[in-house]
Amino acid sequence: MRTPKPLPHYLINRYHGWKATTYSENEPWYRRLATDGQNPRAMVISCCDSRVHVTSIFGAEQGEFFIHRNIANLVPPYNPDGEYHGTSAAIEYAVGTLKVAHIIVLGHSNCGGVNGCHDMCSGHAPELEEKTSFIGRWMDILRPGYERVKDIEDEAERRSALEKEAVLVSLENLAGFPFIAQEMEQGMLSLHGLWTDIGEGGLEHYLPETGFVPV
Amino acid sequence: MRTPKPLPHYLINRYHGWKATTYSENEPWYRRLATDGQNPRAMVISCCDSRVHVTSIFGAEQGEFFIHRNIANLVPPYNPDGEYHGTSAAIEYAVGTLKVAHIIVLGHSNCGGVNGCHDMCSGHAPELEEKTSFIGRWMDILRPGYERVKDIEDEAERRSALEKEAVLVSLENLAGFPFIAQEMEQGMLSLHGLWTDIGEGGLEHYLPETGFVPV
Amino acid sequence: MRTPKPLPHYLINRYHGWKATTYSENEPWYRRLATDGQNPRAMVISCCDSRVHVTSIFGAEQGEFFIHRNIANLVPPYNPDGEYHGTSAAIEYAVGTLKVAHIIVLGHSNCGGVNGCHDMCSGHAPELEEKTSFIGRWMDILRPGYERVKDIEDEAERRSALEKEAVLVSLENLAGFPFIAQEMEQGMLSLHGLWTDIGEGGLEHYLPETGFVPV
Amino acid sequence: MRTPKPLPHYLINRYHGWKATTYSENEPWYRRLATDGQNPRAMVISCCDSRVHVTSIFGAEQGEFFIHRNIANLVPPYNPDGEYHGTSAAIEYAVGTLKVAHIIVLGHSNCGGVNGCHDMCSGHAPELEEKTSFIGRWMDILRPGYERVKDIEDEAERRSALEKEAVLVSLENLAGFPFIAQEMEQGMLSLHGLWTDIGEGGLEHYLPETGFVPV
Repeated sequence: MRTPKPLPHYLINRYHGWKATTYSENEPWYRRLATDGQNPRAMVISCCDSRVHVTSIFGAEQGEFFIHRNIANLVPPYNPDGEYHGTSAAIEYAVGTLKVAHIIVLGHSNCGGVNGCHDMCSGHAPELEEKTSFIGRWMDILRPGYERVKDIEDEAERRSALEKEAVLVSLENLAGFPFIAQEMEQGMLSLHGLWTDIGEGGLEHYLPETGFVPV
Repeated sequence: MRTPKPLPHYLINRYHGWKATTYSENEPWYRRLATDGQNPRAMVISCCDSRVHVTSIFGAEQGEFFIHRNIANLVPPYNPDGEYHGTSAAIEYAVGTLKVAHIIVLGHSNCGGVNGCHDMCSGHAPELEEKTSFIGRWMDILRPGYERVKDIEDEAERRSALEKEAVLVSLENLAGFPFIAQEMEQGMLSLHGLWTDIGEGGLEHYLPETGFVPV
Repeated sequence: MRTPKPLPHYLINRYHGWKATTYSENEPWYRRLATDGQNPRAMVISCCDSRVHVTSIFGAEQGEFFIHRNIANLVPPYNPDGEYHGTSAAIEYAVGTLKVAHIIVLGHSNCGGVNGCHDMCSGHAPELEEKTSFIGRWMDILRPGYERVKDIEDEAERRSALEKEAVLVSLENLAGFPFIAQEMEQGMLSLHGLWTDIGEGGLEHYLPETGFVPV
Repeated sequence: MRTPKPLPHYLINRYHGWKATTYSENEPWYRRLATDGQNPRAMVISCCDSRVHVTSIFGAEQGEFFIHRNIANLVPPYNPDGEYHGTSAAIEYAVGTLKVAHIIVLGHSNCGGVNGCHDMCSGHAPELEEKTSFIGRWMDILRPGYERVKDIEDEAERRSALEKEAVLVSLENLAGFPFIAQEMEQGMLSLHGLWTDIGEGGLEHYLPETGFVPV
């Protein structure tokens, strides 16, 4: 078997650059973060996509955001069946242990996962319906969103609407977690839905009255 | 029900700062990324912990790394049972669609998830054994690692060893995905295990002959 | 005729060192680069000078920068006369085929080509004015820059200013290529002017408001 | 007009990393290089392709190689007509001023420029025959090489043979520069032809008796 390999040299070089600059300038803060533990203000759920950096958009420093990233920034429905639920575990930790004040779901344009869901639900990607397709099964979470946008005639518009549904479905599922509903009821937690346009550098937030509007 | 809220003002301010500087300086690159799609060199699997920023350590820019973050940077065993598997879906997308050349698992010191696993496996956190504990069920992935370190006498040492096991168990599980094994066999994909010390700013990589050593 | 010779042994040794380390660690990435083609983010135009390594300064790895190097990092004016234009061909390939987002012109201190231009334009190197001097004819591209600095009294200052003019003249000529002007107009391409001090390890970028300032 | 822009922040960060590590460790050497001038042992002529790094393959440090990079590592025939000849100027400077002992022409696999030449010469890319195509006019230098490989039946083999012709044509043209012929005659200069396989990490050198063989 091909065993784990050492880190490529170019990353080692970059690490040493970071150590000599960013770390060196902030050493006391990093030491304090290690000693005192993290105390993030918000949890962010965003996509794995390499083009989406919440740390960049929000100038986030070490210690500010508890970040979960998965395909298409999805939250599955609450389902405590004893199986592995990585997203739900992250949410439980953020709310129950870290007591974050905000959960931010960040969607984005040009999302490969959402496009796969679109193709699957519209019958153009039967392979994603297979039990063995992890992507297909995962994107099934977004199927209720597809139902709400499927009648939009223009295809580009429909795909874009589905990206925003990925945020809304996740917000709905989040609200279905009992411990989240309880914290929200007590005013200790608020949910936020965002969508960013990669090419334009745009950012929209969801308001119940108006839908998604630029911030 | 308490509905989604607009984005807090301090984040709106930061976004506009990013837009006026980083985005503005790189506008053509962001447009290309949107038009041409992402082409990341590596997938990184790291923890949600707010103190761990792979984008900072490696000076990663938009487009470089496909990043999945979950509690304790864990990869569950390959199990195509048709259920939601967010981590496996992310891996399938990275390897099958994006054809990344490297998968890097990045563990870290002071990991809350790993400590929970330690307490659960040593009988000090029975609530995590409950079917309703998402964190407990998720951290169960690391139980084989606990078995390998449980006889280490010094507690701090044992907890630290378990953090590194979180990397090794994930590497083992990754190698059990058929499509990963195949790409590795063909020399198209390599796996890497890293562990970072938050307070010291240290970075170690795993070598089969020597274990974890500083880069 | 003396025919081509085998590679000197010290370079063969170094190659095998690279193969056993850097290549071996990054084999999957090199295979992908060969299969999928290059996708560089930027074109860099720098000098042939052995002391100027843009790959070192920017930690550039295989695949990141499309690099053209000529004497004094010069870009000649746009002139599609059907003759051989190596620099213009490289630019056309970078912008038209690779669709890079940035073109970076990197000048440097102690530039032999620029000093030759200074001597030629000030009448101290008549041999460079000859039709048979490739260096002289090439450095003639920088003559408009000499006109702008020739009244600086201090010689060292004047030579240094001419090095920076080599960057500015190139930026001006770049902007005169119709396909570059068009991409810039559409926000898909930006130009950057840099100058590095070899001995000090300094780096300055050109800002229209302030001229060259340290980054 | 859109004016020159400041350097993107990620490159500024990388530069500071380099300054704090590589430069800092080698400061006396960089200062000496600035004071005493460069004294490179060889000139390398390679392609602009982002995947080809002679500094990586040969572990080249600042000061070792005088490097000219253009599309397809081509040297045009000697032609002192008073026009701009960037490649010939670089060669003249390397041989006449720096008195390098070796000129190394480094070709490579998967070369976009060579493929363009193949398509043009075989009648499949008439746009490259246009006077306004800088790439087409530049690749015309390789036409004599195409004539020698055009009867190879297998297309992949033919394209690969043309990549090696790009090295051989350049060596032939180099030998036609009077000042090069003279230095070679006196045993002060030798020419070398190399070709590297990007995916395999292979390196071949040209020997008159055997053609290209692995080093």
